[in-house]
Amino acid sequence: MNVLITGGAGFLGQKLARALLARGTLSGVDGSQQAIDQLVLVDVVQANDFGDPRVRVVTGDITDPALMHSLIDAGATSVFHLAAVVSGQAEADFDLGMRINLDASRLLLEACRAAGHKPRVVFTSSVAVYGGKLPDVVRDDTALNPQSSYGAQKAIAELLLNDFSRKGFVDGRVLRLPTISVRPGKPNKAASSFASGIIREPLNGEDAVCPVSPALRLWLLSPRRAIAALIAGHELSGDALGTSRTINLPGLSVSVADMVAALEKVGGPEAVARIRFAPDPAVERIVQSWPGAWDDSRARALGLEGDADFESVIRAHVEDELS
Amino acid sequence: MNVLITGGAGFLGQKLARALLARGTLSGVDGSQQAIDQLVLVDVVQANDFGDPRVRVVTGDITDPALMHSLIDAGATSVFHLAAVVSGQAEADFDLGMRINLDASRLLLEACRAAGHKPRVVFTSSVAVYGGKLPDVVRDDTALNPQSSYGAQKAIAELLLNDFSRKGFVDGRVLRLPTISVRPGKPNKAASSFASGIIREPLNGEDAVCPVSPALRLWLLSPRRAIAALIAGHELSGDALGTSRTINLPGLSVSVADMVAALEKVGGPEAVARIRFAPDPAVERIVQSWPGAWDDSRARALGLEGDADFESVIRAHVEDELS
Ligand SMILES: NC(=O)c1ccc[n+]([C@@H]2O[C@H](COP(=O)([O-])OP(=O)(O)OC[C@H]3O[C@@H](n4cnc5c(N)ncnc54)[C@H](O)[C@@H]3O)[C@@H](O)[C@H]2O)c1
Ligand SMILES: NC(=O)c1ccc[n+]([C@@H]2O[C@H](COP(=O)([O-])OP(=O)(O)OC[C@H]3O[C@@H](n4cnc5c(N)ncnc54)[C@H](O)[C@@H]3O)[C@@H](O)[C@H]2O)c1
Repeated sequence: MNVLITGGAGFLGQKLARALLARGTLSGVDGSQQAIDQLVLVDVVQANDFGDPRVRVVTGDITDPALMHSLIDAGATSVFHLAAVVSGQAEADFDLGMRINLDASRLLLEACRAAGHKPRVVFTSSVAVYGGKLPDVVRDDTALNPQSSYGAQKAIAELLLNDFSRKGFVDGRVLRLPTISVRPGKPNKAASSFASGIIREPLNGEDAVCPVSPALRLWLLSPRRAIAALIAGHELSGDALGTSRTINLPGLSVSVADMVAALEKVGGPEAVARIRFAPDPAVERIVQSWPGAWDDSRARALGLEGDADFESVIRAHVEDELS
Repeated sequence: MNVLITGGAGFLGQKLARALLARGTLSGVDGSQQAIDQLVLVDVVQANDFGDPRVRVVTGDITDPALMHSLIDAGATSVFHLAAVVSGQAEADFDLGMRINLDASRLLLEACRAAGHKPRVVFTSSVAVYGGKLPDVVRDDTALNPQSSYGAQKAIAELLLNDFSRKGFVDGRVLRLPTISVRPGKPNKAASSFASGIIREPLNGEDAVCPVSPALRLWLLSPRRAIAALIAGHELSGDALGTSRTINLPGLSVSVADMVAALEKVGGPEAVARIRFAPDPAVERIVQSWPGAWDDSRARALGLEGDADFESVIRAHVEDELS
């Protein structure tokens, strides 16, 4: 089988690629496990192919219809659509966000529809689809009310994927991801970038700035669990999803203060001393509009799992990235 | 001031045009009442101009970017965006629905943004944005889960209008309309067409087919109240709307059996005898997915009003259309 990852050079794209190569199989269109013959990684940035002959790296822009159609027409039966412009950037550059988060998602769905072989499409959405006055724990039936363009674009792509699935054009599933922490590497333009930075930088002996108050509650998932959920979400049968293809993934509800306390356990007081609090109202406005927790019982009933606690998330980060 | 109605030759478009001409003024960008100097009615079908010199009829397709930009650039400060493809048709012709219900709505918002004068945009949405397992009374914070392409396209346009408003590109408001009954004229391709037909045809001495069961609950609003709500919705100050530009309009929750009972009071048993029940699963599937009622307290608090009861709705129809 032919598997496609858009945004395949990105943080989750690269981790997912590694995990799929190690796993070697995925459910095919008929539900049976099939060997992954080819794994296509498309991204504007050149992806790492891990020296694996099954990987085909395509460097290009998925907003280009010709490229998108050629990728799907080449026989992609499973698509992980991860390419996106993150929240802070989509807010700063409205047109860029519309083009990549919305238009490219629609183009992908249209290319699948045109190809006609009903690919399985896994789409990653976000806490940012929620906003406004929210209950302490967001329910599956809580209305979306995004307060950022990124959130609006993700919410629209969710609706498209649901309708294209209902019509039988694709076999889609939307996984709403909590904020992923700890993300390795450099800070990015996501409003939530600090949620990794305040752990990652101190463990690296570097200073970190926290732009939100210690009381702010975040809904987090580790990279390990996120990748496991992307694969498990792919493996679910479409019938298990009923009238909604959208699943709120499990997460941990922690305050920034909780995160700092967990960091102290792993990295000691010298790590904590590296964090400086300097409120940034622009970041705070966006991140505060997101849920601090949602009801993840549907995801858990479907077999998707979250992390035990934030301390073990940090320890996994140390294991995966710092050793 | 220059007012634009898209779908200006349609059922609500024509009634709204008449009401605006009679009223003569609307809130301008600064909130003060201003005389309506020009009322532009754009539609693919030629609109009636009522012989009023303030009316300018434009016959054209609003999916054409050049036409849309010219209409907005001509100085439209208030736009009632009513042009749409109805539910049954959008389900049968997916591309047509996407083009008119989604692409044209986005084009309108982009044209407003490009013009830069922040027009007030009133957009009509529908019960069809809801679906799946619903509470008996849908709340303002109940998640959208459309089970038709029309509903998905309306939900997406709502999200766009909200985000364009949040960004300050337009001053938008979405009015979610109940099913409008009694609609005069011929049956149309809306899945809910019967909700007018089973009243209208018998009162005209014609037979009517009801494709759903008598127990089915509908959420209805009369044309009179719908037009009043479109104008009142336009007049609301943007500040009154908080973090959501979307308002669930007041309605009446009635079963088909209640509607038939009200018809008997107005038209006698001979009217009722004209109705034949012949279930149509395609129609029933769509209409059943819609809410039978929603909480309209926000709309009422904002001064928007519904009908007293369905009998008075029928009597108003007789007064407005049959005398
Ligand atoms: N990391 C998180 O906390 C988080 C949380 C919720 C949702 N998500 C979603 O998960 C997905 C993956 O996130 P990530 O953290 O790996 O992001 P990332 O920014 O690391 O990866 C996204 C990739 O998409 C690529 N891309 C952007 N525009 C493209 C285009 N036009 N054509 C081809 N490639 C393009 C980028 O080059 C980048 O490599 C995204 O959809 C994101 O919105 C992430
Ligand atoms: N009537 C209802 O029960 C009801 C309920 C909920 C929402 N709405 C919404 O209210 C609005 C008005 O409804 P209506 O009942 O008057 O519908 P209608 O079908 O009578 O009017 C819609 C008009 O849009 C025009 N139109 C369609 N495509 C066009 C295009 N590309 N360019 C220009 N004009 C185009 C049509 O010619 C038609 O005259 C619609 O947006 C509809 O979805 C109606």
